[in-house]
Amino acid sequence: MSKNPRVAVCGATGAVGREMLKVLEQREFPASEVVPFASARSKGKKLPFRGGELTVQELTHDCFEGFDVALFSAGGSTSETYAPSAAKLGCTVVDNSSAWRMNPECPLVVPEVNPHDLKWHKGIIANPNCSTIQMVVALQPIHLEARIKRVVVSTYQAVSGSGQKAINELETQVRRLFNGQEVVPEAYPHQIAFNCLPQIDVFLEDGYTKEEMKMVNETIKIMGDPNIKVTATTVRVPVFYGHSESVNIETESKLTADDCRALLATSPGIEVVDYPEKQAYPMALDATGLDEVFVGRIREDHTVENGLNLWVVSDNIRKGAALNAVQIAETLLEMDLMRVER
Amino acid sequence: MSKNPRVAVCGATGAVGREMLKVLEQREFPASEVVPFASARSKGKKLPFRGGELTVQELTHDCFEGFDVALFSAGGSTSETYAPSAAKLGCTVVDNSSAWRMNPECPLVVPEVNPHDLKWHKGIIANPNCSTIQMVVALQPIHLEARIKRVVVSTYQAVSGSGQKAINELETQVRRLFNGQEVVPEAYPHQIAFNCLPQIDVFLEDGYTKEEMKMVNETIKIMGDPNIKVTATTVRVPVFYGHSESVNIETESKLTADDCRALLATSPGIEVVDYPEKQAYPMALDATGLDEVFVGRIREDHTVENGLNLWVVSDNIRKGAALNAVQIAETLLEMDLMRVER
Repeated sequence: MSKNPRVAVCGATGAVGREMLKVLEQREFPASEVVPFASARSKGKKLPFRGGELTVQELTHDCFEGFDVALFSAGGSTSETYAPSAAKLGCTVVDNSSAWRMNPECPLVVPEVNPHDLKWHKGIIANPNCSTIQMVVALQPIHLEARIKRVVVSTYQAVSGSGQKAINELETQVRRLFNGQEVVPEAYPHQIAFNCLPQIDVFLEDGYTKEEMKMVNETIKIMGDPNIKVTATTVRVPVFYGHSESVNIETESKLTADDCRALLATSPGIEVVDYPEKQAYPMALDATGLDEVFVGRIREDHTVENGLNLWVVSDNIRKGAALNAVQIAETLLEMDLMRVER
Repeated sequence: MSKNPRVAVCGATGAVGREMLKVLEQREFPASEVVPFASARSKGKKLPFRGGELTVQELTHDCFEGFDVALFSAGGSTSETYAPSAAKLGCTVVDNSSAWRMNPECPLVVPEVNPHDLKWHKGIIANPNCSTIQMVVALQPIHLEARIKRVVVSTYQAVSGSGQKAINELETQVRRLFNGQEVVPEAYPHQIAFNCLPQIDVFLEDGYTKEEMKMVNETIKIMGDPNIKVTATTVRVPVFYGHSESVNIETESKLTADDCRALLATSPGIEVVDYPEKQAYPMALDATGLDEVFVGRIREDHTVENGLNLWVVSDNIRKGAALNAVQIAETLLEMDLMRVER
């Protein structure tokens, strides 16, 4: 690598796109230039960056000329349309949509778990689903130590996972309810304020949602072990930022709660918060704006031979999306896998 | 039974006590008289009942003279103090606190599950924990059909489970946050507004909370089968009324999702709401003020030989507390187990 890369951020005006710019700045990503792209509608909009402003450019098939890496967070169909154009121009894509995740030509990467998969990328790298990312960061050290056989996970997911529209919807609904006004759901099929919705994404044939099957299939692809069985129930809760997960794990060999705690405390990307005597455990509110995957409520589950219960929390917009994408770009640089020499 | 029973409601001014009065009225419980009792502080307070008003009397050791049944919802220590006095005077106690639940002298009853246990009562009958009640109503038909081996449950519990103070706290916190004011948690150790707290009740030695162990132990006592293994993670969410539960079940024999749906649809106290094509599933908001345990998201879990996932929702103040207590009183009457002849 002879020069600093030029970085395109596509879908820059959305909740994740804006966070990508923030993360690039905060982590001092060694970019020679960062350019925000979005649909024609947002062209000319100004976004803050490194004390100044960036002007949003229109996303086109040719716009990636001269760029080394493009961070996409513009939805599945936009990504399907433009990511191949970027890749063809030698600009490596890190895509946050679900479009490329299960494509066998595309690595699906969480840098703490499977950085080695970046080696076989062909121009498009997929960023996993938010609820999957934080779970596999916690699962991987346990799997390496004790082999995970089965995971039963129930999620408590924040509205920010559905974008800015849903953030506004929760706020508006609460405000209207407190003023005695009627609530009309738009971002979700039902009222989210003071309610729990056991549906994230659309339903599939067998009664599971797409989100639930993402957690099943993406976990296997990222962790690289088809023997890990996952069953999931994904639920939207009236929280703005931070996904929480109740994770029940069955392992092949024994891992005590103390061993698990010690193991996770020294594992990458994890902060253990597990002090029942101080009523300290991970919470969505505390995780907001931070980078770590927080793990607590670590308990042995004696209903199986080798069982564990965990409570896993992370900022879904950061580690669950923007941060993980930037970390992938950083890892590409470190491993010299970004095509910056041309 | 020669006459209609006289009913005492103890702790009548609390969230559950008030609901007990409402349920007695709505179900036209055949009481000759209903008298609300509370601590000296609330003496003389008026509570609405059957179009008129009842005057709160002071709870004393002698106040149960001439009463046939006392519905207690006044906290554990009050119950420990006064329930034996009531029972000694021939007034059968149905107690909503945790004080008597695991006492081998006291039946722990959910009328849809184990009405037969009322036969051996000695004057004090315990009303189970709210999150346990709604779960066992859903589990019992499945257990009778396919033998349940193991349950992994994660809860999404409403603040009303912690009483009126917590209801006020969620409302106050939201109002203050929306006005840019500081939030100081009182009812809970941390802010509940727009947050999830993975702690309900106090922590025990092994890292589980009391609430989690209630779900483990009470389930076994109610369902009368020590072979049912339960592991629980109980979580408070910013919802006013209605507990939701993600329940993963492993059975001895196979029960398909369709069979489970058909079975539960004809089981007592249950309403199946499971129409993914219409985005219809149980929700806390819809369950508020209703009597049923709502079950949906019924899916086969293929990570074990015979597995099922369910989403179970009920009004924690009604079926989870007041309604179940009144139903116990009704069942005592029907089974002629209330000492109304004196």
